[in-house]
Amino acid sequence: MPELRKEPISERWVVIATERGNRPSDFKFPAVSEEAGLGGANCPFCGGNEGKTPPEITAWRTPGTAPNTPGWDVRIVNNLFPALTKEGDINRTGKGVFDMMSGVGAHEVIIETPQHTLNIPDMPEEHIEKILWAYKQRIVELGKDTRFRYVLVFKNYGKVAGASLTHPHSQLIATPITPRYVKMELKNSREYYLEKERCIFCDIIRQELGSGERIVFENEFFVAIAPFASRFPFETWILPRRHEYGFQVMPDEERFLLARCLKDVLSRLKTCLNDPPYNMVLHTSPNPIARPGKPDYWGTLQYDFHWHIELIPRLTKMAGFEWGSGLYINPVAPEKAAKFLRETKV
Amino acid sequence: MPELRKEPISERWVVIATERGNRPSDFKFPAVSEEAGLGGANCPFCGGNEGKTPPEITAWRTPGTAPNTPGWDVRIVNNLFPALTKEGDINRTGKGVFDMMSGVGAHEVIIETPQHTLNIPDMPEEHIEKILWAYKQRIVELGKDTRFRYVLVFKNYGKVAGASLTHPHSQLIATPITPRYVKMELKNSREYYLEKERCIFCDIIRQELGSGERIVFENEFFVAIAPFASRFPFETWILPRRHEYGFQVMPDEERFLLARCLKDVLSRLKTCLNDPPYNMVLHTSPNPIARPGKPDYWGTLQYDFHWHIELIPRLTKMAGFEWGSGLYINPVAPEKAAKFLRETKV
Repeated sequence: MPELRKEPISERWVVIATERGNRPSDFKFPAVSEEAGLGGANCPFCGGNEGKTPPEITAWRTPGTAPNTPGWDVRIVNNLFPALTKEGDINRTGKGVFDMMSGVGAHEVIIETPQHTLNIPDMPEEHIEKILWAYKQRIVELGKDTRFRYVLVFKNYGKVAGASLTHPHSQLIATPITPRYVKMELKNSREYYLEKERCIFCDIIRQELGSGERIVFENEFFVAIAPFASRFPFETWILPRRHEYGFQVMPDEERFLLARCLKDVLSRLKTCLNDPPYNMVLHTSPNPIARPGKPDYWGTLQYDFHWHIELIPRLTKMAGFEWGSGLYINPVAPEKAAKFLRETKV
Repeated sequence: MPELRKEPISERWVVIATERGNRPSDFKFPAVSEEAGLGGANCPFCGGNEGKTPPEITAWRTPGTAPNTPGWDVRIVNNLFPALTKEGDINRTGKGVFDMMSGVGAHEVIIETPQHTLNIPDMPEEHIEKILWAYKQRIVELGKDTRFRYVLVFKNYGKVAGASLTHPHSQLIATPITPRYVKMELKNSREYYLEKERCIFCDIIRQELGSGERIVFENEFFVAIAPFASRFPFETWILPRRHEYGFQVMPDEERFLLARCLKDVLSRLKTCLNDPPYNMVLHTSPNPIARPGKPDYWGTLQYDFHWHIELIPRLTKMAGFEWGSGLYINPVAPEKAAKFLRETKV
């Protein structure tokens, strides 16, 4: 019989169709690597084409090389077609029952490497560390802009996952509101903390490490799990094992272990599911300052939150039921997904 | 500059990228009608193949014809691959931080016509009325089962929208919980009512009819609007103009006007966007009885709710930002979408 499970942090219910015998090979997609092409002259993100992107915001560079020239390992530029714009005031207004504000924010691209076809599973861990460094720089830097409540780092891998360019890259969007899904997690982890004086994420991690059945990977500082109420087949979360409220406050010496964890998990997904399209999102505490002189409950650093990365392979389609209900139907039990991923040789 | 808009019922924020000049022709999809094939012997939903589906639950039939034989206009059967199962108890349990219950529910298919390629825009209004009659029958009937809190009627049109069979059909799923998106709407319309003693939907309808800029269609009883904070290009909602908390309590004499409205709006979407894939969902009040002797705030009829149909053309992809934030980026302003749809000749 199928099972309804509740994700305790967001309070989302999910239908886990446990008896369907789905194996990784049931999900057939062309490998994303087949989309890549050769890069080179036509790819604005390839090394040597620095003039084809908006100007560099920051980069991890070989000392002595100039911005917007080769010599970089990771490079950050504005998105050429930004969803939100950097200039201007927020202008909160209302019209009858409707509320609105200006679309002020930032939309940046983190170019992960000058090489067109080098993805995280094939990068040295030292290089992945530089990508994580770039995420941190931008979250901290944009967090100082008092118009922005939140910086969301995400990655679309493959056309099915929404990528329009194949060169390895992630993105970030800074928003003048804390996004709804993050707010739900912030609100519920706060309420849990106020009631129990424990972090809900820490409780989940403890329980998962105890049972072991949904663990995909663990090292000294990080753990990757298939969440109990996974919305999607092979959904995987990466969390710091000890309580840490923000990605941006992670000590530098832990970054290498996160790089190792991310490389391991993405390698497992790649091998197990034949290089599937996926989305990655980073949920961390909001920016420290909401508006000067106007402290805002959800717009500020929250020590009872626990940052994490959500990885969502895009193997199934959203249909009317999911759109209408917010209730997901997942044909692969997370215990089974975790076992497949754990047993994949990488 | 883009604009952030808040949908007042669900409190979802949306980025409306108003300055992008998107026209309907910018969204290129093969017309869904091209997927249909001929039907006939291989289609379990075609007239004459009644033996190829699970047994008939109910049907609109020519008097004197027997169940599971030809002679029907609209026919309801169990889904052959149900997401939830009809037999069994709910068995709410917990395990540490996790909550779960059995996947008890109903999953039925409403076969809209015996004809393989006859879709709503081409049906006589009298036939569409019979489909709406079928929805009502099943919502009322399944609402008597005290295990079920909610009956969600929905439709996936086209493969991109999640349809696995091309023969015209809708579906319903009865669930032992009120789905999250419906709960949000119920909760906020209740709070609005308690504060203002007015229905939030009625206020929106009044404001929209006053300005007119987002109106797609109106008749004596119904109105179709492009919502102020549309999540998707050409998203359209159909609502009864006067306050009515449940689809299932709509007087029979209004059904014809709803059929006319639905036919008109779907015809406009079809013509304007070249027969696009879409999802349709019906949001109505939950079932009248939650559990015997255990009244439940959100599991019961709610008179301050206002039922409506949401139509979502599937023209854009969900990507990492939307998954991570719950904040949608819509490249077509609803005022523009409504104008295109209004000016489409049908």
